[in-house]
Order: sequence, then C-alpha cells, then structure tokens
Amino acid sequence: MPAIESAPDEICLRAIDSFHVGGAVRTLSGLPVETRRLAQGAAARPVDPNGDHVVGQMYVQAYRLARPRHALPVLLWHGGGMTGANWETTPDGRPGWLWRFLRAGYDVCVSDAVERGRAAWARYPDLYAEAPLFRTLDEAWDMFRMGPADGYRTDPAARRAHPGQQFPVEAFDQFARQWVPRWAGHETITSAAYRALLDKVGPCIVVGHSQGGGFALLAAQERPETVRAVVALEPSGAPAAGQAGTQPHLLAWGDHIDDHPVWRRYRATVDAHAAALAERGAPVEVLDLPAGGMRGNSHFLMMDRNSDLIAERVLHWLDALGLQHP
Amino acid sequence: MPAIESAPDEICLRAIDSFHVGGAVRTLSGLPVETRRLAQGAAARPVDPNGDHVVGQMYVQAYRLARPRHALPVLLWHGGGMTGANWETTPDGRPGWLWRFLRAGYDVCVSDAVERGRAAWARYPDLYAEAPLFRTLDEAWDMFRMGPADGYRTDPAARRAHPGQQFPVEAFDQFARQWVPRWAGHETITSAAYRALLDKVGPCIVVGHSQGGGFALLAAQERPETVRAVVALEPSGAPAAGQAGTQPHLLAWGDHIDDHPVWRRYRATVDAHAAALAERGAPVEVLDLPAGGMRGNSHFLMMDRNSDLIAERVLHWLDALGLQHP
Repeated sequence: MPAIESAPDEICLRAIDSFHVGGAVRTLSGLPVETRRLAQGAAARPVDPNGDHVVGQMYVQAYRLARPRHALPVLLWHGGGMTGANWETTPDGRPGWLWRFLRAGYDVCVSDAVERGRAAWARYPDLYAEAPLFRTLDEAWDMFRMGPADGYRTDPAARRAHPGQQFPVEAFDQFARQWVPRWAGHETITSAAYRALLDKVGPCIVVGHSQGGGFALLAAQERPETVRAVVALEPSGAPAAGQAGTQPHLLAWGDHIDDHPVWRRYRATVDAHAAALAERGAPVEVLDLPAGGMRGNSHFLMMDRNSDLIAERVLHWLDALGLQHP
Repeated sequence: MPAIESAPDEICLRAIDSFHVGGAVRTLSGLPVETRRLAQGAAARPVDPNGDHVVGQMYVQAYRLARPRHALPVLLWHGGGMTGANWETTPDGRPGWLWRFLRAGYDVCVSDAVERGRAAWARYPDLYAEAPLFRTLDEAWDMFRMGPADGYRTDPAARRAHPGQQFPVEAFDQFARQWVPRWAGHETITSAAYRALLDKVGPCIVVGHSQGGGFALLAAQERPETVRAVVALEPSGAPAAGQAGTQPHLLAWGDHIDDHPVWRRYRATVDAHAAALAERGAPVEVLDLPAGGMRGNSHFLMMDRNSDLIAERVLHWLDALGLQHP
C-alpha cells in the first residue's frame, strides 16, 4: 500500500472492539408489498417491507491499548451530518485525533451516532417521521467558516477562503466525501443511544464536536458520575439548565465566530451554559483560539492544519486534571 | 471500559489511515427550497437542496502494521446491505476477521462500499434514481440461512434455527443493528469505486463476502495485475464471462445451500464461473464446508462460531500461495 503519511511512531493494541448500543426492534405491518429490481438487469420481484426492523442504535469502535497510560478512556463524538471518520485521518492525509489520543496513552472509542455511518438509518415516514437533510458544499463552505458565504464555487481554484484559513481547503472536496445525511429532530433517540454508550463504557472523558459537543454537555449533566470531564469543540448548542454536573469543562472555539450570525447565536447559548456551570462550581476553561492569538481556525479544529497543536492543548488540559478511575 | 473479549495477544500499528476513494461532484439546480425544522423545538427555516453534492465515493480504513509479515495487504469487502463492521467484532463479541488477519501479519483494509456506512449516500430521485431497500429481520432469517423460512419470530425464544446452527443466533438482533439500507442497480458505481480503491492500494489480496464476493470476482477479472488472489465467501453472483484473470481463487460455502432456491441459483452461477476460471488455467479451490464434514454454517462464515477455524483455512491457503510483491 502506498504510504499516505505515517505517524512518527506506533501504537500497540490488545483489541479493536466494535459493537452497537441502544436501538429497539419495531414491527411494521399493513404496508404494500413493492415490486423492485434487486440487481442491474434482473427481473423485478416482490419486496415486502412488513416485518421487524431495528431503530435507534449507535455504532462504536473501541481501540484498547495494550498498555494504556491513563485511567479513563476518551470518547470522540462527531457532529451533525458527520461520522466517526471525522476523528481519523484528516482530509489532507495527516493523522487525526484518534491517533493522537491513542499515542497519548488513552483508550479511545469512536462512534457513529444514530442514523449516521455504520449506525444505519431507518425507513421514513414509517419509522422516522421525516426525510433527511443533505448539506451542499455551497452551504458548508459558509457554515463551516471556510470563507465568505458567497465564496464557494464548484471549481476549487475559483473559491475564496478566509485569509489565513487553517482548514486544508485544497482537501475540501475530499472532506465532503465524509458527509452523510442528517435528520432534524432526532435529539431524543440520539441522546438515548449516547446514554446507553456511557452506561456500557463507564467512567470516561467525552470529547464532542459541534452537535456532538452539545450532546457531550447534555451527557455531562445527565450522567455526572460517568462523564468525568468534557471537551466541547465548537458545540452547536447546550442543554436546558440543569442542577447536576460539576465536572471540568473545556470549551474551544475557532476564528470568525463573530462574523457569522448563526455561530454568534450558538456561542451565546454555550457561553450562558458555561456561566451556569461555573456558578455551580464546575471548573470551566474557554479556549478561544483567536483571542489567544491563534487565527484562522475553521469549525473543524481537529482537521485544521494546526490540529496537532490544538490536540496538545487539550491533552495538556486533561493531564492537569489528573483524573483517576473512581 | 468493560472487556468484551480481548484476543490472546496484541498488534502494533504504525498507522490507521482512513480515506474515501472515487466519487464526483454533481450539481443540483431547479429544486424547490424546502421549509424544515433543523432541531427539536426550533422554528422551521428554508433549506436549499440546490448546489453541489458528492456522489459515488467509498470509505476505507487501512490498518498498517508496524511489522507486517506478508508482502501484500488484504482487502475485506462486505456484502449487500452491510458495512465494514461485518469484519470487526462478531455480533456475540469475539474478535472478527479484521483482527485475525492483522494477527496473521497482514496489513488490512476494511471498506464501506458506495451508499453504505461511512461512505454516505445521495438524494433520490435527484442523484440516485430509486429509493433504497430495507431488509427485515424476518427476511434475513431465511436469506442468511439461520433457519427455515417460516422460523422467524419477533420473540427470540420462539425462533426456530437450523439444527446445529453455527451462527450465534442469540446475537441475531445485535447483528441486525449492523444492517444498512441498500440500493438495487448500483453495481456500476460500486464497482467503479472498488477499481479506484485497487488503483490506489496496488497489488493485494481481496477477501469478499456475498455481494462483495461477486465484486471480488469481477475485480479479479478487471484488474488481473492488481488482485493477486481472491477469496470469495458465498459470493452472490459472478461476472459475465471474461478473458483475463488467472489468479488463485478460493470459494467457500456454508451449509443448507441445496435447501434454498435462491442460494442454489447463486451457487450454480458461481460454479459456472469457477469452471471457466479453471479452464483458462486459474488455480481454483472450493471450500465446501458441509461436503468436508463441517455442518451448520450460515451465510456469514466470518461470524459463525467456527469463524476462527475458517479463517485458519483461508490463511493456510494464502500462505501456501507464497505471494510476493511483484
């Protein structure tokens, strides 16, 4: 195999465990039997959608080190319209945060949330109420803060990125190959699956990005004994005010938040949550990269050209907590 | 993390590379802007489907050993309505063939074929022509040869399996959590992505199951210099007669093929292909498990209780070939 780019060193694993958590069997009945072709050139034949289907499960890949150097595993939770691939090799071929956290001595769980990737999705409108949403490259260029809202063109050479952009924009179309459809309004089934994951894994550290960052903040509130520390990278929301959860929280933000109305609103929600957390005694640190002089980060801090530097900051923050298994 | 079951030994990796191959940008225009709710309780807002989408890409996870003991990597190709999760931990929690091949000293690539898992799927009818198909547990019980066609019940305790069934039927609902929707008639775009993968990886061994076994037989014919050996586990089809491809082929079959009209037909097609391969000089070995006295295997040889034994047979066959990098 041609080398993409190999990391400077190696990791030794005692297991790569993959499993699904959550989900339940739902029975469909009374639907018309369809007549469908099952392969190119084949004759059409009856296909019966009635019967049992599984709905609401989530997929997890657990990388278990031969000799972990930390007591608690790290769970990496991706954002909306994404999968666990977000944490693997970056779109421009560098080792991602999965590798960085393994190299730092943590067992790591990468998951595909309900409806996405290897978690699978279910029929609509029979099992899911609605059709999914598909994000265009045009919209993502703006929402992921690659460049100005009108800066996207199909021709990569004609696109306008923010000056000093840290995302490897030359690999933007490669990155787009990772995106998967997403459903609105699935917060309840998705957070139920995350709870099932936490109940299975036990005490852990959760690192969540975007929508996954919002789920991480919620999980910290719902499972304060299990989620021992939270790193939320650009969370796109925060849970309604709760009483529980005084774990350490690290909140990280990239550049151009203030120029973008949607991100300004998301940030305001999370800032209010952070203030409430601090008020009830949780150690909260905000890593505002541009305020600290690091300019140009996109929404995808773990894929940007300085992703290793940001990982180092997160790992350093975690080390300083000195978390032990309870 | 609770141990599921750890393998007796460890593996050391120098990289876990993940990437997408194939696919192209397609531009949609002229579609109506929808009004959709993007989160629970949020106000509906316009969502514009017009713009650029990626179609036809495939996802690959390449596990690269620190010290591989074989010249060529092994590519594991799953079947229809499945993902690369098929090759990971078995549904009842034993190490799967990914781990077995890594332990045997092979670099391994696990892929999610076009439209499935982390490969993502595209809008229909705008980009894909048709809606997907969802397999019920009821149908799978029959098609995967767990038990008689009328043996499925929602209640696991009430199901009837074939006597001596090797599939861990107590984990059938867990297995069902892996299944993903599939599209009929996508052979052309899927085989194009497999060719892109082969062109990227170079000389290799392909192990394919079911629909993936059919793609493996096709790839061997299309890329005779790249696919150096083929292991097809219960391939559900074979390519139209070709001229090229005299690599070694191993074809493996489980139990109850003769009792099942669909499987009898698939097997007849593959037997004819095997005869044509042998006629043009390819070494072809057929591992007919029940004929050799090993009874009870389902369609999923790599998940059955004797999956390690079958892996050993495959690894032994590969060893005997003594393949070297060209």
